[in-house]
Amino acid sequence: MGCLFCKIVAGEISADVVHQDDTVLAFRDIAPVAPTHLLVIPKRHIEHAGVTSAGDAEVLQEMLAMAATVADMEGIADGGYRLVFNVGDDSGNSVAHLHLHVVGGRAMGWPPFPRS
Amino acid sequence: MGCLFCKIVAGEISADVVHQDDTVLAFRDIAPVAPTHLLVIPKRHIEHAGVTSAGDAEVLQEMLAMAATVADMEGIADGGYRLVFNVGDDSGNSVAHLHLHVVGGRAMGWPPFPRS
Repeated sequence: MGCLFCKIVAGEISADVVHQDDTVLAFRDIAPVAPTHLLVIPKRHIEHAGVTSAGDAEVLQEMLAMAATVADMEGIADGGYRLVFNVGDDSGNSVAHLHLHVVGGRAMGWPPFPRS
Repeated sequence: MGCLFCKIVAGEISADVVHQDDTVLAFRDIAPVAPTHLLVIPKRHIEHAGVTSAGDAEVLQEMLAMAATVADMEGIADGGYRLVFNVGDDSGNSVAHLHLHVVGGRAMGWPPFPRS
């Protein structure tokens, strides 16, 4: 199993873990783009947000609940935050294990990508 | 009930609907920021992504599945797309009914906001 995030879940690769429970793990992105930038992942391997099935419903909701929990822990729940799933090359997705970016601590503006 | 998106679900306000089923509706954002920019919403009112509970799990997965379906219909499934939930003022969220932005049709780059 060559999956980077599965190795983080297994403790084979270290990460700056902020919070976890039985099914979901939250850790700091190694290349933060905002004052708070966390990743929330399911401990069980799911490839990406485009291939979920009914059996993934529970863990998906747990990911959103974990995002809300860590947003509160980071002090960004009141100010607000952006949640991002990237799917495929146009989005810049680089790890084939479902992960939810939790970004906040600043006003983020719109659109949800750099103007080019 | 003053909720704009509940009125779209009820047919009281028109929208450019792309696809729907019993629980989820997909329609075009009125201010698109990319070649494809759709919103996927639950037909049942949920305030935002920070306040979901276990009872919302099924519809959340259905929202992701609908996003994948409409991405395929729009021809952006292979190229990739970005899925965004905004929570609170710092994210620019402006409608208090859960909605998932589906953005694609171009390379989007990173971070998930304009550089300022």
